[in-house]
Amino acid sequence: MTDIHHRIGIESSSTADAYSALTTIDGLAGWWTTDTSGDAGMGGKIEFRFPPGGFDMEVIELVADERVVWRVVDGPPEWVGTRIVWRLSSNDGFTIVLFSHEGWAEPVEFLSHCSTKWAVYLLSLKAMLETGTGSPSPDDLAISDWH
Amino acid sequence: MTDIHHRIGIESSSTADAYSALTTIDGLAGWWTTDTSGDAGMGGKIEFRFPPGGFDMEVIELVADERVVWRVVDGPPEWVGTRIVWRLSSNDGFTIVLFSHEGWAEPVEFLSHCSTKWAVYLLSLKAMLETGTGSPSPDDLAISDWH
Repeated sequence: MTDIHHRIGIESSSTADAYSALTTIDGLAGWWTTDTSGDAGMGGKIEFRFPPGGFDMEVIELVADERVVWRVVDGPPEWVGTRIVWRLSSNDGFTIVLFSHEGWAEPVEFLSHCSTKWAVYLLSLKAMLETGTGSPSPDDLAISDWH
Repeated sequence: MTDIHHRIGIESSSTADAYSALTTIDGLAGWWTTDTSGDAGMGGKIEFRFPPGGFDMEVIELVADERVVWRVVDGPPEWVGTRIVWRLSSNDGFTIVLFSHEGWAEPVEFLSHCSTKWAVYLLSLKAMLETGTGSPSPDDLAISDWH
């Protein structure tokens, strides 16, 4: 099993703001993909869509202002069954977002791409909370031939 | 053991350009840190310095335009003994850089930070090769309280 890990710190924000950006459809649409729909509450299913396809996530854990966990229930075969874990905390005036995408079967090249792409989207989340404007798909930063 | 993985694709470039950016002091100083010195040739030691500290890398593998491997010989304890592996190839008009930082003992929070930070520096490498201008330290993008 292989995991992707990231960490960002957000200024002028709070764990409540970050939690809202991860647990509301409007919040998620502001930094990951504008084409987000579904139910972001406990047990709900969220549908994230991008020009080439998308992911369906089941919300399997919610601890207010602290922790969000999704399980991938549909999408690329490498993603199905993996889990996305968000841990929120405060440190020194920053809201810390500790992110992991856990349970990849193999460290395939697509994992490497997704790792870099997650970093780009986390910086979009940071920008949204700091400035009011993120860069969600389809206006996300292209990093390669795989977009 | 835990590894960091990333993948970027560079336009208007070649594997030879990317190889040069990884195997010359001037190239490295253009995207990672301006304070780079030492010997980037086979068996050489490269010293990368940042405001809070730095890393010494031994060059342990070089295959022209294809592959570069460094071993970390000094720096933060979590880094010492780990390896940085660069694989270069071409695909569909892009120069593909497949990156891994291998052999972390544990998935500590510092690994999460370094993973995101590597993505930022890889985008700096991409920018340098596409536009002539990277964002090396100390003008790198700050991602958190850990910079």
